[in-house]
Amino acid sequence: MKEALRWTGDAIEYLDQRRLPHETVVVRARTVDELESAIKTLAIRGAPAIGVFGAYAVALLRRDISDDEAFGAAVERIRTARPTAVNLRWAVDRVLSANEMLAEASAIHEEQHAIDRLIAQAALPIFDHGSRVLTHCNTGSIATAGGGTALGAIIAAAKVNKNLQVYACETRPLLQGARLTMYELRHAGVDATLIVDSAAAVTMQQKKIDLVIVGADRVARNGDTANKIGTYGLAIAAAHHGIPFYVAAPRSSFDLTVANGSAIPIEERSGEEVLAIGGVSNADARTVAYNPAFDVTPGRLVTAFITEYGLLQPPYSDSIPELAYRPSVAAFA
Amino acid sequence: MKEALRWTGDAIEYLDQRRLPHETVVVRARTVDELESAIKTLAIRGAPAIGVFGAYAVALLRRDISDDEAFGAAVERIRTARPTAVNLRWAVDRVLSANEMLAEASAIHEEQHAIDRLIAQAALPIFDHGSRVLTHCNTGSIATAGGGTALGAIIAAAKVNKNLQVYACETRPLLQGARLTMYELRHAGVDATLIVDSAAAVTMQQKKIDLVIVGADRVARNGDTANKIGTYGLAIAAAHHGIPFYVAAPRSSFDLTVANGSAIPIEERSGEEVLAIGGVSNADARTVAYNPAFDVTPGRLVTAFITEYGLLQPPYSDSIPELAYRPSVAAFA
Repeated sequence: MKEALRWTGDAIEYLDQRRLPHETVVVRARTVDELESAIKTLAIRGAPAIGVFGAYAVALLRRDISDDEAFGAAVERIRTARPTAVNLRWAVDRVLSANEMLAEASAIHEEQHAIDRLIAQAALPIFDHGSRVLTHCNTGSIATAGGGTALGAIIAAAKVNKNLQVYACETRPLLQGARLTMYELRHAGVDATLIVDSAAAVTMQQKKIDLVIVGADRVARNGDTANKIGTYGLAIAAAHHGIPFYVAAPRSSFDLTVANGSAIPIEERSGEEVLAIGGVSNADARTVAYNPAFDVTPGRLVTAFITEYGLLQPPYSDSIPELAYRPSVAAFA
Repeated sequence: MKEALRWTGDAIEYLDQRRLPHETVVVRARTVDELESAIKTLAIRGAPAIGVFGAYAVALLRRDISDDEAFGAAVERIRTARPTAVNLRWAVDRVLSANEMLAEASAIHEEQHAIDRLIAQAALPIFDHGSRVLTHCNTGSIATAGGGTALGAIIAAAKVNKNLQVYACETRPLLQGARLTMYELRHAGVDATLIVDSAAAVTMQQKKIDLVIVGADRVARNGDTANKIGTYGLAIAAAHHGIPFYVAAPRSSFDLTVANGSAIPIEERSGEEVLAIGGVSNADARTVAYNPAFDVTPGRLVTAFITEYGLLQPPYSDSIPELAYRPSVAAFA
C-alpha cells in the first residue's frame, strides 16, 4: 500500500486514486494546473488528504511564483478546487499565515498521522469483540495522508477485537468503497464484505449491524455533517434500526463559522460520473443525471463524533464549539 | 420500443433486456435450457413479465415433451428459475391446471395489458399537476409484458399531468433504472432525471419529492413487500421525510399463502454482479460481496397498494386477504 502523497523537495508525488485497485500509479504535480487538476479530478481525495495536499501545494507555489498577485490567484484556485470539505481551505489558510510555509505544510502532514492515531484510540470503546460494522466511501490512510479516520479506527479495532466483520458500501458513482476501502481492508487482513449502496438497509437488518461509522467533509457547529453522498440515507436507516451512527473526523473538518448544514456548499459533479462506470456507458447518452457529491446528515442522527480530543456527545451546540479552545495536537501528541 | 416478449407459434421471442439501452436484440427461446436461462440471467425480467414468459414456456414445453415425467421436470425448472417473484409460480400453475394451455398463457398475457391499464387508472389520483415522483428499478412495459405497473402509472399520469418530474434510481447492481426506466421514460417523453441509489434521501429532501412509487415481486398477507434491493431503504427514507410510499402490483404478485415477509424467499445472486459493471471490474477479484437481489419492506411503511381493483389501504391484514374474493379481470376488463 503506497502512501497518499509525499513532498519530494520540489514537487508533490501522489497516488492516483482513480486507478486503484488495479493499477498503482504515482504522479508528480508541480504546476498550479497539475495541482488543481489532481484535486478536482479526485486523483487525490479524502477531506484530510486534500488538506495536506493543499498545504504542500501552497508552499510549492510560493517557491515558484514570486509575483504576489499571481501567487494569490494560484492559491485561490487550489483553495476553491473543491467546495465542500473545509479541510482544504483550513490547511491553505494555515500555511498562508505561517512564516515558514513548507515547515507548516509538513507539520500539518505529521499532525494528521498523530490525529488519526488519536481518533483510532478514541474509537476503540465503540467496538466490541465480533462487532459487525458498516462503513461508506473511503476514510483510510489514502483519504487522510495519515492513518485514516473511520477506516483507520476500524482497522485499529480489528487488530484488538477478533472477528470484527466489516460491510463496505461500494459508494457510487466513483466506487471509493469497492475500489479503495475493500483494498485497504484486504491489506490490513480484516474480514470485509462489499455491498451495493442500496443494500445497506437490508444488511443492517439481516446481518445485524452493530454500528455505522463514517468520515466527514465538513461538520457545522450544531453537528450537521456533510459527507459522501449516501451518508444521509445510511444515518436515517441506522436510526430506523436503532443502530448507533458515528462520525470520525479531525478538528480540521469542523467549521465553527457555520451554524448548521444549510450553509455548507454541496458540490454537484458532472452527470457523466453517473452515466458511465470505468468508461462503460450505463444509459442513453442523452440521459440527464443529478449528481450531488455530498449530502448533509442532521446532527440529531449522529450518536457521537470521534475526534482527536475524544468523543463529542450531544448536545453538539455545546460540545462542538468547545473545540475552539482545545490545544493543538502538536502540543500533546 | 419493442415489446418484452411474444409467442411466435412455435417459440417465444423476447427482448434481451441485458443489452438495453444500447442494443435492441430479440432472442428466440424454445428448449427448456433456453427458457430457463432467459429467466435466470435476467434477459427477461420483471415479476409480471416472467409470469407471462413462464406461462408460454409451459405451453411450449407441453407441445414438445410428450413424456409426462420429463415434462414435469422441465416445468419445475421454469417454475423455480427465480424464487422471489410469486408471479412465475402463479402463472405456471395456472397454465398447468388449464385444459388449453396455450390459450391460458395467451389469456394471462392479454389480461396483463388490461390489469396494467387498470392499475394506471387507479393510480391517477395520487399524482398532482407538477408532482415530483421517485421510482426504483424498472416497472415499465418491458417488466410486465403489458403496460407496466409503477412506471406504467407514472407514464399514464404524465400524459394528463403536465410537468410531472420523475427521478429514477439507477438500481445497482444491474442498473435497471439507468438502462431501462430512463429509456422508457425518454420514449414516453417524460421529464426524467437519473440518480445513484444512495442519492435518494437527499433527492427527497432537496428536490421535494411528493411521492415514491415502486413495483413488487411478492406481497405477503400483511403488506410486507419483497421488491428490488434498495426498496426497503427508500421506504425508510420516505417515512423519515413524511413522503407517501406506494406499491403498484397486480393481484398475481400477492401471495395470500404467506403471512408476512419473513416467509418470502430472497434470492441471493452472484457477487460478480457487484464486482463488475458491463464487464469492467470495480474491485480486486478476491473481493467478497453480499448480493441479495431483493429486500422486504414492512407493510407499515407502505401508504397504499395500487392494484387492478383500486387502492388497498391499511390495515392490510383486512384489505389484502379480500383479494381472494375479487372477480378475475377477464370478467370485467
